Amino acid sequence: MEKLFVVKVGGAVLEDTKTLDEFLQHFAELEGNKILIHGGGRSATQLSTRLGIETKMIDGRRITDEETISIVTMVYGGLINKKTVAVLQSKNCNALGLTGADMNLITAIKRPVKDIDYGFVGDIVKVDNNAFNILINAGFVPIIAPLTHDKKGQLLNTNADTIASSISTAMVNQFDVSLIYCFEKEGVLSDPENELSVISELNRNDYQQYLASGVIHSGMIPKLDNSFKALELGVKSVVITNANSLNSKKGTHLTL
Amino acid sequence: MEKLFVVKVGGAVLEDTKTLDEFLQHFAELEGNKILIHGGGRSATQLSTRLGIETKMIDGRRITDEETISIVTMVYGGLINKKTVAVLQSKNCNALGLTGADMNLITAIKRPVKDIDYGFVGDIVKVDNNAFNILINAGFVPIIAPLTHDKKGQLLNTNADTIASSISTAMVNQFDVSLIYCFEKEGVLSDPENELSVISELNRNDYQQYLASGVIHSGMIPKLDNSFKALELGVKSVVITNANSLNSKKGTHLTL
Repeated sequence: MEKLFVVKVGGAVLEDTKTLDEFLQHFAELEGNKILIHGGGRSATQLSTRLGIETKMIDGRRITDEETISIVTMVYGGLINKKTVAVLQSKNCNALGLTGADMNLITAIKRPVKDIDYGFVGDIVKVDNNAFNILINAGFVPIIAPLTHDKKGQLLNTNADTIASSISTAMVNQFDVSLIYCFEKEGVLSDPENELSVISELNRNDYQQYLASGVIHSGMIPKLDNSFKALELGVKSVVITNANSLNSKKGTHLTL
Repeated sequence: MEKLFVVKVGGAVLEDTKTLDEFLQHFAELEGNKILIHGGGRSATQLSTRLGIETKMIDGRRITDEETISIVTMVYGGLINKKTVAVLQSKNCNALGLTGADMNLITAIKRPVKDIDYGFVGDIVKVDNNAFNILINAGFVPIIAPLTHDKKGQLLNTNADTIASSISTAMVNQFDVSLIYCFEKEGVLSDPENELSVISELNRNDYQQYLASGVIHSGMIPKLDNSFKALELGVKSVVITNANSLNSKKGTHLTL
């Protein structure tokens, strides 16, 4: 089977033009089939603030009311997605920017209200691997914004890490899939204050111990839960690494 | 040859959710290969105002400085484009929303500064008909936002009417192309105060006379100039009509 790289980039990397440009250079140089998924939460918060709209977050998830879904559609689906595409095109990477609504790539349901009403937030139901295949086989590079839809006309705000792992697992029958999470840190750290303390290999048992001791916490937990699930479902490798180390062997490599 | 409809929608149609939904229903029902190009200038002006940024227009063209290109990228490439895609998907039209940067569909050059510096405004250099063919042949419906790129990493604001005629003429070797401009009026009017005064058939000679007498003026001139050029270059038919009359024989039909 051919290889497919599913790369997610987020965090501070997207905020700085130079850092982002360097990352996109690395991504453009990555040989073979590839898909990029980006975040953009900080830019969405900035635009909300400029428009006088309060940002409400619970456990790192954005409460997405009617005005907020418009803002994230503008920032994720428009500004970040299209600027990324234009920069990649300048680097001869034949990118096209899409949301989960485009080509019906990713359908989701609006998260049911239990204790918290997250608003227009989507939980993924299905990834259309055929549509991705058509693009990849034609030599195009999909750039995915963290938006899905309910197939009833409503866009839904959806976590980019989750989109990355869902796309990865949807593609395992056609490709040898490598999932790579890129951010501003060197990998999963055993000491958050020390960038040199990268855990180079992390298996599920060790992960449970790090969780119990509190070394791994907050935003890293859903990312790692998603990653181990992806490995279980047939993704060949998962790496969490610095955006500048995309083409190296650095970072944290996960194993079951 | 198979038929291809290239439909442009703009003006007040995009501003009202119900009117837009009705138009998109008509568009979804249009049988055969199709491409939609949308505008969005009024929404861009609204967002600019909310952000405290002054909108500068010269002869109906937006002066596009650094901040304005970000705004139109958000509004055209994000908000309007992705909402349109989500609504069409709910109507079982397998749409995907793109700019000219995506798949390198439309390359342009930044308009050279003569008397006026329009800023990040693009004049079209090339439409990639192969990329459009791949999408259309796979059964997808491209929804195009009025943005192009210079292939050097810069997005450019580009007139949607011009994009529609450029795509039309680029596709004449593969398809029998019909170009349809949809807006809130019934067609080209011989009396702008009277919606019943639609000129049902307009040839180039008559057009020159209407121009000389001042019956046709301002924004309609570039639209008609583009349309006659498209007919010359092999487009089979050009119609200017109300957004609600997309599937009828109404409106103004152009002939050479």
